[in-house]
Amino acid sequence: MGTRAGIVVTGTEVLTGRVPDRNGPWLAEQLRLLGVDVGHVVVVGDRPEDLRAALSFLTSTGASLVITSGGLGPTADDLTAEVVGAYQGRPSAVDAELEQRIAAVVERLMARRGWRTDPSATAAGVRKQARVPDGATVLGPVGTAPGLVVPPADGRDGPTVLVLPGPPSELQGMWPDAVAAAPVRAALTGATELRQETVRLWGTLEAQLAVTLRELDAELSGLEITTCLREGELEIVTRFAPAAQGAYDRLAAALAAEYAGTIFSTGPTLDELVGRAFADQGRTVATAESCTGGLLAARLTERPGSSAWVRGGVVAYANTAKEQLLDVPAALLAEHGAVSAEVAVALAEGARARFGTDVGVGITGIAGPGGGSPEKPVGTVHLCVATADGREARALRLPGARSAVRERSVTMAMHLLRRALLGGPPA
Amino acid sequence: MGTRAGIVVTGTEVLTGRVPDRNGPWLAEQLRLLGVDVGHVVVVGDRPEDLRAALSFLTSTGASLVITSGGLGPTADDLTAEVVGAYQGRPSAVDAELEQRIAAVVERLMARRGWRTDPSATAAGVRKQARVPDGATVLGPVGTAPGLVVPPADGRDGPTVLVLPGPPSELQGMWPDAVAAAPVRAALTGATELRQETVRLWGTLEAQLAVTLRELDAELSGLEITTCLREGELEIVTRFAPAAQGAYDRLAAALAAEYAGTIFSTGPTLDELVGRAFADQGRTVATAESCTGGLLAARLTERPGSSAWVRGGVVAYANTAKEQLLDVPAALLAEHGAVSAEVAVALAEGARARFGTDVGVGITGIAGPGGGSPEKPVGTVHLCVATADGREARALRLPGARSAVRERSVTMAMHLLRRALLGGPPA
Repeated sequence: MGTRAGIVVTGTEVLTGRVPDRNGPWLAEQLRLLGVDVGHVVVVGDRPEDLRAALSFLTSTGASLVITSGGLGPTADDLTAEVVGAYQGRPSAVDAELEQRIAAVVERLMARRGWRTDPSATAAGVRKQARVPDGATVLGPVGTAPGLVVPPADGRDGPTVLVLPGPPSELQGMWPDAVAAAPVRAALTGATELRQETVRLWGTLEAQLAVTLRELDAELSGLEITTCLREGELEIVTRFAPAAQGAYDRLAAALAAEYAGTIFSTGPTLDELVGRAFADQGRTVATAESCTGGLLAARLTERPGSSAWVRGGVVAYANTAKEQLLDVPAALLAEHGAVSAEVAVALAEGARARFGTDVGVGITGIAGPGGGSPEKPVGTVHLCVATADGREARALRLPGARSAVRERSVTMAMHLLRRALLGGPPA
Repeated sequence: MGTRAGIVVTGTEVLTGRVPDRNGPWLAEQLRLLGVDVGHVVVVGDRPEDLRAALSFLTSTGASLVITSGGLGPTADDLTAEVVGAYQGRPSAVDAELEQRIAAVVERLMARRGWRTDPSATAAGVRKQARVPDGATVLGPVGTAPGLVVPPADGRDGPTVLVLPGPPSELQGMWPDAVAAAPVRAALTGATELRQETVRLWGTLEAQLAVTLRELDAELSGLEITTCLREGELEIVTRFAPAAQGAYDRLAAALAAEYAGTIFSTGPTLDELVGRAFADQGRTVATAESCTGGLLAARLTERPGSSAWVRGGVVAYANTAKEQLLDVPAALLAEHGAVSAEVAVALAEGARARFGTDVGVGITGIAGPGGGSPEKPVGTVHLCVATADGREARALRLPGARSAVRERSVTMAMHLLRRALLGGPPA
């Protein structure tokens, strides 16, 4: 591959998982769009020697650009700018103009929240955030922390280091300025277009796909194929240079022929498919959730514009809520139990009737860890999607812990919706 | 620090963010509990040379144990076992007994899903998964992929490599066997207890805290302090050897004195505090959500045992749903608009009345990207928590994109619940 970049995500809170890393993947995708190959994302805690080691490792992989995120705050554990400056042979000093700009931002922030506003109390932190390696380009700031472009000192080899803040909104807000900066543009010279195509299957085991790919092997040169199985969905992502488009077309045709019964998408995600189908068809939906507790409604409403097709939903944990808000007959609950195929149907129809929608979804189950019995163990889940044309129902016995049971139930409900709206592979 | 480990997370789907990494943080936390220091988590795509470079980098950081996750599947892009074997100087060969075990698992999986079950079709993939480096210890398998413990070949230096599968449930299921394996125990010799304490503040800026920490600096030796600001919550995590307990106690006392008005927890997360308070006080809750679309209900019901105190909720996107399911007066909606302080109160009281709970929460707002106006721009959110004792309400104007507005609204609702149940710092 051509131009290569590496990413360093800093922060003990990320390394230990208290905060999930959203920057590494986002930066990797932006670089891919620019035709830049990313080999490694290194997550590192707030120790200078560990950060230095990561910079040195990425230099050794041949990266012409290294991007860091995080470690630009006012506290002593925020040390990225200083360490990067030293690594590049560019000692840092306070930039007086920048110091004033940051002080003004901090003052505004404090005032807006109605907090203590004595500037002398925050001056040391502001001064720290205004330290800039000699010869670096300052970006922003979007929040309080400026970004930095730090090329190697004159006469030195090695990558240009782009230093970005940790909060994803600040990092993303700074990105256009960052890629426009001359030293970043120079570091990315030679980047070439890299295409990416995705095929999604529902109901094919990875082991089967492996056979197909092995048989096709001779025809796949120039393609970088990765497969990933997640909650029953098998995702095939292929990246290639424009010259290998013919090879990709052959692969796509072979997959289409072999897996006609399980390919549900050659691009959009499940959520995109379902959202677009509701919007295009002008149909509406309402949910009735027990064990998933609002997760399905939250997933549907995550999509911009979903207010056009989601009318609402009921989270009915208590049986009285199922009766009073969704008209599930008390006798049905008594006879079959709240976790039953019959109640899933009643929930779906109750949601449909109460919200006056075209489609209703009912989910009832035992997410655990408590509540299971020999007949209905933890992981037992009943789902139903009801439309004017009829109903489709599923009874599942899912493995895994509470959150896994809840997530998989919601994914199955999304596939039932996909199937009800678009046909295609059975859910 | 004493014993050191490194973690390699493999998979192009993780590197590019199509799948979030759940294994790196989980493993880092498990190692911390064992007193092992983790310096780096390296995320690497499915290329042998990139994986080799990552192993070599972690060896250079002085790790005595390197853990890999992922890349053990049947497809050609799954190459971890082979690359690790070669790195450690241990060539791989098929383990016939393991091959039979994996074949039986695959057959069972296929049968259970009712998929094609011709064993010859999957034989090549199974054989690949049964390849074991010479002298390695085999773990599991929990799913189809076995784990491996691969020490360096006799006479070689370097870390022992523990190879674990990518699916989090399989990796976590294999962990007890992995840490019990003799070569892993040997690699972790010398690990010592590392304590971790957390203080959480709501309403203090990181810049203020920086001043306090700087003033205390001389008294903090032996403490590794990291601070992290997330959705308005400032989290202070301190890690230290048992000998530094005295220094930590002094820090905790200083923080308690300085930030009495903003410390809301010296341990539990916000969600733990709220869940425990409901359970301990025997009170119940119901939600009425518009812009957050079920996210608050989903967050509350994520906690095991929450069915004892969550009765349910309504997601009321459409105004008719607000009227019919939550008794919000049509006149109120017409006069003030759906996004208003008055409607937030009506939603909270409606949820409380309809579900017969002690506490009701109402949220209404404009999450964007559409729907904003000059008077009520995107990010305008009204919240109300209603109890028998009264109401607490907030009007917010949140920055950021749709998902950020939704998440921050839910976090604010959780703080309003905390405050209503436990008192403490204002939300």
